[in-house]
Amino acid sequence: MTDLLSIILAAGEGTRMRSTTTKVLHPVGGMPIVGHVARAARRAGSNRIAMVTGPEHQSIRDVVGAMDPDIQFFEQSEAKGTGHAAAMARDAFADASGYVAVVYGDHPLLRGENFRVVLDRLDAGLDVAILGFEPNDPTGYGRFITEGERLLAIREHKDASDNERQIGLCNACILAFRAEVFRDLIGKLGNDNVQGEYYLTDMVGLANDAGHKVGYGVAPENDVMGVNDRAQLARAEGLFQDVRRDDFMAAGVTLRDPRSVYFSYDTEIARDVVIEPNVVFGPGVVIDEGATIHAFSHIEGAHIGPKASVGPFARLRPAANIGAGAKVGNFVEIKKADVGAGAKISHLSYVGDAIVGADVNIGAGVITVNYDGYNKAQTVIGANAFIGSNTSLVAPVNIGEGALVASGSVITEDVEADALALGRARQTNKAGRGKAVFERAAALKASKTKEK
Amino acid sequence: MTDLLSIILAAGEGTRMRSTTTKVLHPVGGMPIVGHVARAARRAGSNRIAMVTGPEHQSIRDVVGAMDPDIQFFEQSEAKGTGHAAAMARDAFADASGYVAVVYGDHPLLRGENFRVVLDRLDAGLDVAILGFEPNDPTGYGRFITEGERLLAIREHKDASDNERQIGLCNACILAFRAEVFRDLIGKLGNDNVQGEYYLTDMVGLANDAGHKVGYGVAPENDVMGVNDRAQLARAEGLFQDVRRDDFMAAGVTLRDPRSVYFSYDTEIARDVVIEPNVVFGPGVVIDEGATIHAFSHIEGAHIGPKASVGPFARLRPAANIGAGAKVGNFVEIKKADVGAGAKISHLSYVGDAIVGADVNIGAGVITVNYDGYNKAQTVIGANAFIGSNTSLVAPVNIGEGALVASGSVITEDVEADALALGRARQTNKAGRGKAVFERAAALKASKTKEK
Amino acid sequence: MTDLLSIILAAGEGTRMRSTTTKVLHPVGGMPIVGHVARAARRAGSNRIAMVTGPEHQSIRDVVGAMDPDIQFFEQSEAKGTGHAAAMARDAFADASGYVAVVYGDHPLLRGENFRVVLDRLDAGLDVAILGFEPNDPTGYGRFITEGERLLAIREHKDASDNERQIGLCNACILAFRAEVFRDLIGKLGNDNVQGEYYLTDMVGLANDAGHKVGYGVAPENDVMGVNDRAQLARAEGLFQDVRRDDFMAAGVTLRDPRSVYFSYDTEIARDVVIEPNVVFGPGVVIDEGATIHAFSHIEGAHIGPKASVGPFARLRPAANIGAGAKVGNFVEIKKADVGAGAKISHLSYVGDAIVGADVNIGAGVITVNYDGYNKAQTVIGANAFIGSNTSLVAPVNIGEGALVASGSVITEDVEADALALGRARQTNKAGRGKAVFERAAALKASKTKEK
Repeated sequence: MTDLLSIILAAGEGTRMRSTTTKVLHPVGGMPIVGHVARAARRAGSNRIAMVTGPEHQSIRDVVGAMDPDIQFFEQSEAKGTGHAAAMARDAFADASGYVAVVYGDHPLLRGENFRVVLDRLDAGLDVAILGFEPNDPTGYGRFITEGERLLAIREHKDASDNERQIGLCNACILAFRAEVFRDLIGKLGNDNVQGEYYLTDMVGLANDAGHKVGYGVAPENDVMGVNDRAQLARAEGLFQDVRRDDFMAAGVTLRDPRSVYFSYDTEIARDVVIEPNVVFGPGVVIDEGATIHAFSHIEGAHIGPKASVGPFARLRPAANIGAGAKVGNFVEIKKADVGAGAKISHLSYVGDAIVGADVNIGAGVITVNYDGYNKAQTVIGANAFIGSNTSLVAPVNIGEGALVASGSVITEDVEADALALGRARQTNKAGRGKAVFERAAALKASKTKEK
Repeated sequence: MTDLLSIILAAGEGTRMRSTTTKVLHPVGGMPIVGHVARAARRAGSNRIAMVTGPEHQSIRDVVGAMDPDIQFFEQSEAKGTGHAAAMARDAFADASGYVAVVYGDHPLLRGENFRVVLDRLDAGLDVAILGFEPNDPTGYGRFITEGERLLAIREHKDASDNERQIGLCNACILAFRAEVFRDLIGKLGNDNVQGEYYLTDMVGLANDAGHKVGYGVAPENDVMGVNDRAQLARAEGLFQDVRRDDFMAAGVTLRDPRSVYFSYDTEIARDVVIEPNVVFGPGVVIDEGATIHAFSHIEGAHIGPKASVGPFARLRPAANIGAGAKVGNFVEIKKADVGAGAKISHLSYVGDAIVGADVNIGAGVITVNYDGYNKAQTVIGANAFIGSNTSLVAPVNIGEGALVASGSVITEDVEADALALGRARQTNKAGRGKAVFERAAALKASKTKEK
Repeated sequence: MTDLLSIILAAGEGTRMRSTTTKVLHPVGGMPIVGHVARAARRAGSNRIAMVTGPEHQSIRDVVGAMDPDIQFFEQSEAKGTGHAAAMARDAFADASGYVAVVYGDHPLLRGENFRVVLDRLDAGLDVAILGFEPNDPTGYGRFITEGERLLAIREHKDASDNERQIGLCNACILAFRAEVFRDLIGKLGNDNVQGEYYLTDMVGLANDAGHKVGYGVAPENDVMGVNDRAQLARAEGLFQDVRRDDFMAAGVTLRDPRSVYFSYDTEIARDVVIEPNVVFGPGVVIDEGATIHAFSHIEGAHIGPKASVGPFARLRPAANIGAGAKVGNFVEIKKADVGAGAKISHLSYVGDAIVGADVNIGAGVITVNYDGYNKAQTVIGANAFIGSNTSLVAPVNIGEGALVASGSVITEDVEADALALGRARQTNKAGRGKAVFERAAALKASKTKEK
């Protein structure tokens, strides 16, 4: 494949977001907007990526750099337009071979295919190819002035004549060039306009003036939506989710109500998994064939084994690893724990920093006491052990295979295999004392009421 | 009413579902697709039902046989088309009187009324009446070739001329015949076509050739949608739910956000019940007048009495029976338990295999310990008893009327009426020891950090 | 501003609601329908409000009177039409100066702006101004017979000619008059029609006959929808929610899926708050900047401080006050409690009637035992204290600053600062006894199975 340098423009302020967080770091499907753009650029075959950020945007460099360490960052210290921003990446494009694609960083639904549409035009012999789309309402977008398959110019909405405003084909978010053409033209951009800014889109006219072959490709409107405010962010999230929902259903996953299930960019689900309504997946989830995720479950960073059953009302946190056929029931939280095949944690429990053996049965209200305020410690429960309800397992502690922990116990010491462990007080009944206590409480209430 | 034999075709493989479960067993509204079809056939007055399944479909026979034991099953061992499938039910239609209706088994929204539309045409004197519909997009469907009210033929999409493809009226999923006409024609079907299959729809042409009176009825598109993949399954579920939501609202039930409430095929709700957003009903739920179901509740197999309050975050499992005016609060699970009128189980509790008397107050974190790993045992709590928080009631156990169980107790023996029961250790305070423990923990953490 | 008396008509029976609750008391966004109307009337500048109810409507007077004590109530004892209802408020309008607006009480989406549209026409010199709208489907609505900007008459649908039924502009729900004109005309209304009722809309014709200047204003259809059944109630709720969702997003709040978040009429949320899917807000919630509300949270009457984190699966009840940066995690219920800055209540706990100091760490399964069946009592926890898991704090009780309560304790007495408190039994292990217990249980099960 031809070399490709993608220059991602991420220097905008995004004031319409009304946020202290930089616009392109707001997440869609659990990934920052600009991360989606970088991922699409890689998938399109970019062997180099440059990203231009604003001077206050260290946070972008940190987040994106962690995702894709090979990205080169450049700073645009003054907001002088898209052309000026792209020029900031000079150190990257100075020696670029092949193609250069400039892409706007606030388009979270962009896919590798959208790049390919214009790159294919370059492959076919064009010097410049711009991605367009036909918006439902073109108001505000730059219009494509075309002649047959040639793109003559991009006219900004405010500069367009009434006739030109009838044009439905508009500028989307990717401008692709042969590297030498890009280098030649970027230096010729002027800022002789009302805003006094350098417009990248002026490169189309310049290219035509220089006798280059300029054309365009077209993307579906949903792929190229930009995010400028929170309503658009929510819309992008919805579109992203709809794509994932359709993909999973096509792959053989049942979603009883697709609209009520929320995926992350990296969720992996095998076929014949059934997902009931109202389930939220954070990043890092893998689910094996035949598992069932019941309603009202919140799952992130977890692996769910084949035919396991999760929820309703379950929370799986990072490093929860649920074995084949295991059951995690209602009001149960699992964190950093291996739950063995066939184990059951059915109700009202917290299991964290633990290894739970196969076929273990954990009763209701069981808590692994894994934190002393400073350190975490581990609980290990052997296969076939039975932990009675309302029990605290104070880590570090080991419960042997087949052991039985009596309900209501506080377990601070190891329990050997097959042993019975108790840690609870004996029951005492006091005849008539319940009634007496209630009478006293009722009298207290009456006296208070009287005071008022 | 005239005798009616319905032959349900359920032998398709449904490979587009990408499932190890047979297509027609996937549920809509908690009932298998083919169960909806059988129910509609009964409601239309079928006194006999035959179902044709594939050779690997014992699961269909098991599930459907349990729902409607009078259904006769037949096997189609080779996939030779709908006409061949219907012929497999020969033992059923050989002596059938009245009418025979052949119906596709993958249409979960089918209702008795849809059968009636064509059966009424037979009542009016026709020999054959086929159910049609006008799809938004007719591509792929067999077109009705008509002359006035006569139906001359059904033309499969791939065999249709361009002109015929303009026809909007298409074949739905019910073909109804006088029994003697059906018997006569089914044997005459040929397989002289590209697929080499016997098409049931060819019976329309045969009937006309034989001089029979052939007509049609029309169904709303939503009623006759077929399910072939998971996206269609989700769509069918949505349509099913919308019908139920509208029906309940018309009957005087408040649904704050109808789209967020999921019913089963058999849910029964009285008027003036209020249902907050995000509630899931499994099968077998009955709710009496004036009850409130708060958000995030998951309810199946339960009866909820008048003016009871359930949720938010409540889970009622099968055989939960909630009394009049009783309250089941957040993070509470009830299973196989009678909860008396006015009783309160407000938070973080599990009550299973229990009888809870009227006006009992169960504190937070109370658990009925009903399982020893092998057997279930029962807890009985008398009226007006008060169970303190974080208590375990180890079944079998009886708590008498008006008794008081102190918070944090483990109760293993019966408590007589009006008694006070305690089963917990005395508190000890050790001055300064908290601080010392923390200092040690902090030092441990510091040493670990140092190691790294 | 000119004096304004608004007369709200709330005497209708609302039988299509099929409810024992009066129609106008059903809530939208947590406020009764008629409360929305009264609020809109106040926002439009009403210095006086009269409300006409039916004879069985003491409940309306109670609810609305509590919201707005200055409203005067009048009773319409017989259902003789809107004109008759308005006349019941004679004691209010007899001495009214300025304007009189009559408004239907079953229009929950009405806003002050909708009143202003017609009041502005009075300000501009008209004597009578009626609010109209252009419904998608005008069937059933009274049509505006106009001549230029003049409104000549309102023709009820059933009295309208075919030509008049083509008119798209219809009567909405506000009729505004100069006070003296209203007083003059209300007495002249007749009931010479099929229903034998006094129609308020006849005042338009009367005003024209008397030579008054009569015009109209126009409202968006959504603002003036009336509620007559539960489906319309659900639709009104949806429209109300959509307005609030859009407003919050515009103000800089992230709603990952706007459709899945439900606000109350009075919810206040600062910018940069992130709200995950599936969150329900009851009345009285205020959220400060930068807080995160995770999925599946149910919040009412609570204040959430800056950068606090709530949920998933959290329930905040009235008078929960969550400090800056504090964390309330899964399966946690907070009621009438101040939670200090930086405190953590991460799992499976109930904290009620409590003061929790800064940076306190509350383990899993901790319960404040605040109720003796008659009285509530308070728990106070000092800063930096650490409450071990599965602990009961039996109120009234004080835990000193920096104290440590051991896991599984029942705390009934105060704990001094920096102390360690324990209230639990010692653990005993019995070798091999676990196995023996299981064998007995298995034998019991086997014997039961045999019996069957």
